[in-house]
Amino acid sequence: MFRIGNGIDYHKLAEGRDLILGGVKIPHTKGCLGHSDADVLLHAICDALLGALSLGDIGKHFPDTSSEFKDIDSKILLKRSIELVWERGYEVVNVDANLVLEKPKIKPYVEAMQTTIAAIIGVNKEDVSLKATTAEQLGFIGREEGVMANAVALLKKK
Amino acid sequence: MFRIGNGIDYHKLAEGRDLILGGVKIPHTKGCLGHSDADVLLHAICDALLGALSLGDIGKHFPDTSSEFKDIDSKILLKRSIELVWERGYEVVNVDANLVLEKPKIKPYVEAMQTTIAAIIGVNKEDVSLKATTAEQLGFIGREEGVMANAVALLKKK
Amino acid sequence: MFRIGNGIDYHKLAEGRDLILGGVKIPHTKGCLGHSDADVLLHAICDALLGALSLGDIGKHFPDTSSEFKDIDSKILLKRSIELVWERGYEVVNVDANLVLEKPKIKPYVEAMQTTIAAIIGVNKEDVSLKATTAEQLGFIGREEGVMANAVALLKKK
Ligand SMILES: [Zn+2]
Ligand SMILES: [Zn+2]
Ligand SMILES: [Zn+2]
Repeated sequence: MFRIGNGIDYHKLAEGRDLILGGVKIPHTKGCLGHSDADVLLHAICDALLGALSLGDIGKHFPDTSSEFKDIDSKILLKRSIELVWERGYEVVNVDANLVLEKPKIKPYVEAMQTTIAAIIGVNKEDVSLKATTAEQLGFIGREEGVMANAVALLKKK
Repeated sequence: MFRIGNGIDYHKLAEGRDLILGGVKIPHTKGCLGHSDADVLLHAICDALLGALSLGDIGKHFPDTSSEFKDIDSKILLKRSIELVWERGYEVVNVDANLVLEKPKIKPYVEAMQTTIAAIIGVNKEDVSLKATTAEQLGFIGREEGVMANAVALLKKK
Repeated sequence: MFRIGNGIDYHKLAEGRDLILGGVKIPHTKGCLGHSDADVLLHAICDALLGALSLGDIGKHFPDTSSEFKDIDSKILLKRSIELVWERGYEVVNVDANLVLEKPKIKPYVEAMQTTIAAIIGVNKEDVSLKATTAEQLGFIGREEGVMANAVALLKKK
């Protein structure tokens, strides 16, 4: 009746790219590199949703070799992921995600991200938790070369 | 009725600091750097508890810019986090955490950590699992520059 | 009635070692270094199963100082871990795991891994989800010096 999922994603940071996190564009000097809009947070959530039902990973459904997904808005990928979940007769109980990045502070954008994600996956804003932490200047995240996100999801049979 | 949470935390290691993990002081040549006592394990557990109910993250509740939290015992932060959970009408089913650090061996201290944490969050010792692994000398953890902890929590409506 | 677990594992990559992931031998120029066969994915799953019931970690049950476990097939460790779970009266609802490695592509082997793991832990293939991502050339995983796996497990009282 319940299932859990667990997603993780990494992206490089590069100058000249928009920084899109949780479906929200955030002013910054760097953005995530990737085939899509490289929204590391939505990708981790997609993988948690898909993983809970063993539906494969984001790379299987949205291959980075396909021109269909070039620069695509990851909200579309999240929408397609949740539709696969609903088709199997499941719904989301809650999602809890962590963003690990050195800069910028994302606190001012968290509520907009929650609202955006909740609307797509069919839950209340309070059922989408987004937390942020730095890597305390350690490693590639600490050097601002990249970012990481992880997410868990609890699903329930409708 | 159930909710899941997922916390992650990183701290630098430095000489001349006490190493406090899971509320227990562990003899070692280095300790975690931070505004509080830098108990990476309790911080990850706090974030898992807060995240399960979308209550924000530890940085929101206990900002590292506040003198109130300077050098604070993280057991106090854990107590405040669980009180927020209880106020919402939830209780902890179980917590499972991983500590990733190269040294020292924490096995002799695990039971004391479990007892300490369980007493604060109102569960039996067997409902708090603490595991440890090294990073196999890889990366900043492998170089003993820092440590990481992650934790998941399952909550249940009372 | 439900419990959640959370495992994480790291291994170095080295030439001249077989690459064994999820119980399946994968053709590659490098393999994981370790006392056992160093199957990072099975180790993360073992730790998630053990952690859900607070049974300690894989290092406690299968110490790397014991000759009994030298070069051991990690499928045996997974079998022993699930037996401990069953002895406590629990069974697996589902497992969701992530493998973070730069190369090779594991997609061709995922179904064989799922079948192998599901048979050991007593669930259907669809209850074992295995996803893979690269670290986008970042850090020690990006430099192909090592790999990481994490896993969550949902258990249910029989
Ligand atoms: Zn991505
Ligand atoms: Zn911390
Ligand atoms: Zn291992």
